[in-house]
Amino acid sequence: MADYRNLLVSLDGNIARITMNRPDRRNALSGEHLAELQHAFVTVADTAATGIVLAGNGPVFSAGHDFADLVDRDLLGVREMLRLCTKLMHTMQSIPQVVIASVHGLATAAGCQLVASCDLAVAAESAGFALPGGKGGWFCHTPAVPVARAVGRKRLMELALTGDAIDARTAESWGLVNRVVPDAELDGAVLDLLSRATRGSLASKALGKQTLYAQLDRPEADAYAIALEVMAAASQTEGAKEGMTAFLAKRKPVWPD
Amino acid sequence: MADYRNLLVSLDGNIARITMNRPDRRNALSGEHLAELQHAFVTVADTAATGIVLAGNGPVFSAGHDFADLVDRDLLGVREMLRLCTKLMHTMQSIPQVVIASVHGLATAAGCQLVASCDLAVAAESAGFALPGGKGGWFCHTPAVPVARAVGRKRLMELALTGDAIDARTAESWGLVNRVVPDAELDGAVLDLLSRATRGSLASKALGKQTLYAQLDRPEADAYAIALEVMAAASQTEGAKEGMTAFLAKRKPVWPD
Amino acid sequence: MADYRNLLVSLDGNIARITMNRPDRRNALSGEHLAELQHAFVTVADTAATGIVLAGNGPVFSAGHDFADLVDRDLLGVREMLRLCTKLMHTMQSIPQVVIASVHGLATAAGCQLVASCDLAVAAESAGFALPGGKGGWFCHTPAVPVARAVGRKRLMELALTGDAIDARTAESWGLVNRVVPDAELDGAVLDLLSRATRGSLASKALGKQTLYAQLDRPEADAYAIALEVMAAASQTEGAKEGMTAFLAKRKPVWPD
Repeated sequence: MADYRNLLVSLDGNIARITMNRPDRRNALSGEHLAELQHAFVTVADTAATGIVLAGNGPVFSAGHDFADLVDRDLLGVREMLRLCTKLMHTMQSIPQVVIASVHGLATAAGCQLVASCDLAVAAESAGFALPGGKGGWFCHTPAVPVARAVGRKRLMELALTGDAIDARTAESWGLVNRVVPDAELDGAVLDLLSRATRGSLASKALGKQTLYAQLDRPEADAYAIALEVMAAASQTEGAKEGMTAFLAKRKPVWPD
Repeated sequence: MADYRNLLVSLDGNIARITMNRPDRRNALSGEHLAELQHAFVTVADTAATGIVLAGNGPVFSAGHDFADLVDRDLLGVREMLRLCTKLMHTMQSIPQVVIASVHGLATAAGCQLVASCDLAVAAESAGFALPGGKGGWFCHTPAVPVARAVGRKRLMELALTGDAIDARTAESWGLVNRVVPDAELDGAVLDLLSRATRGSLASKALGKQTLYAQLDRPEADAYAIALEVMAAASQTEGAKEGMTAFLAKRKPVWPD
Repeated sequence: MADYRNLLVSLDGNIARITMNRPDRRNALSGEHLAELQHAFVTVADTAATGIVLAGNGPVFSAGHDFADLVDRDLLGVREMLRLCTKLMHTMQSIPQVVIASVHGLATAAGCQLVASCDLAVAAESAGFALPGGKGGWFCHTPAVPVARAVGRKRLMELALTGDAIDARTAESWGLVNRVVPDAELDGAVLDLLSRATRGSLASKALGKQTLYAQLDRPEADAYAIALEVMAAASQTEGAKEGMTAFLAKRKPVWPD
């Protein structure tokens, strides 16, 4: 793996781990930090990893954008930063691996957006989630995009307009995270869910998650138009044939890479 | 009713019952089974039925597509099967009757898609729901279309990527089914909800459910553009006039057929 | 404030209160009542108010459209009424203030639509919510538009097809309201949530809520295309600069008006 100034990146078997490692800045997402995350996800996507854990070192998961790297930027400069951030969110959804957030402490603003943009998320009981731009002068317009798609309308309005944090149990009941576990069990719960989500053929999962994101948020007939063609094509892959054949023969399937 | 090889179809008063009856194959949806379901829904739609119960005989509700009728198909053959399946889901939503799933045992893959595509669903406590393509070689791309629209994004990702089953209580809390009841009370609970959902004018209900599906998943202004015109037109029906007149006269309405 | 025949409108500090005051008609929304609500929201939008409470006097919040003002209308007459109603819902979402529903008693049909169309909603424990058109002759097509976007598909179907009321706790768990409190605590809970939702710069909040409504219900990439440009532009406002500068200086921000 490349050396990063803001990240630790490791690969253990089929599980990659991208850890935001700027604890003194509460993992704030400077332009450099975002560019490194973008680089890390693209790089890991080309390894043998089938799943990626996104975590943060230090007291919080991530405090969102780094105001020190924003306050002096003009419109085009801020726009460039937000384009980089949006590109990162898109990259996490378009790479073939399953991406899971491992959340402790606070995930605020673009940090909360990271959680909402991961395919899956597990939170420690002590974690909190907020769109704090609602308290003040710069509204969390872009973080609200994936958060709205996870929690629904009225709850989004409360998060975005008040800026106040919700706790992990509330985040689970609203659908922002998949699981909440005692803090000491976070790593184990993340790996358990990720291992279940990465079984089988990587090629099939990749097509799966990419097609899910393609069909969401569309009228149902439009979604079927996409999903039907992908599913028909996927039926001809080695993995699909093996899955059906093994099922009919009542034997365990042997997945292709 | 016509004779079917895979179904039992009956009409009792205003309630029709379509029962998948291929228990030795766990109600797997072969091409023939799907074609019979399509035929049965279209046929029942032309009867005096105001509500339709979709249920399954045997150990499970439905195991989804029948791999024995898929494994040897080429791309166009599989595509034809998926088009038939998608057409069935669309038919269930476009016929005038209220369609309710009565779910026991497992509802997996296209079986889970059937539940998500019914207007309403009641599950026995012991029921389970899964998109098992996530475990293996052929992802549940099309089942995920209506399931995503019922349970939301993060929960869809968990179901679709892990392939693991959720229990009935979880399905209820996620919005995939309307009610969970003890197994022995399933039939009664289905009929109770269906009878409440089929009160009043069938013509009004039909316009209602068809318009709901037309306006969902669209930007709100687009949805209003549809719903407003339908509602204005519907105000001129005999049923609407009777409803308003009876309400103002404080008497019970007498609905037209 | 103007004198209204169907409303009480007051301004106390930065909080405006619009109270439907037609208790003998259960705050039914006649054409005159809707026109007054439209006028009141537009008028209050030009005051110093940062938040607006929408409430109802008498036994219920609102019973929805006034059949006495509908039963004799022809198609174009009903259509005009529904256009006025839809315009009101849009106005509540497009004005700069945060709008919160304070719900007691029943909120039915267009009354339930009002609740769903407010940015936030708090309900008394004894409140109930229904789309009663599902019971009878005139389906709640337009009320179902914002209600669907709050509660999700299967729950919408149940509400819309049965016409039966759900209680306040169910409405909260389904995401139709943000909070449920004992009846005696309704006013306090409304003001608490509203004060938290109106902190900071009004200009920032206004841009925030307007952009939220613009990006909802769209494919994620379309939503980002809107939110990113607004957020970049908003970074250059006095409020955003003050928020970032104060944060970096570890001092309390002083928001511009």
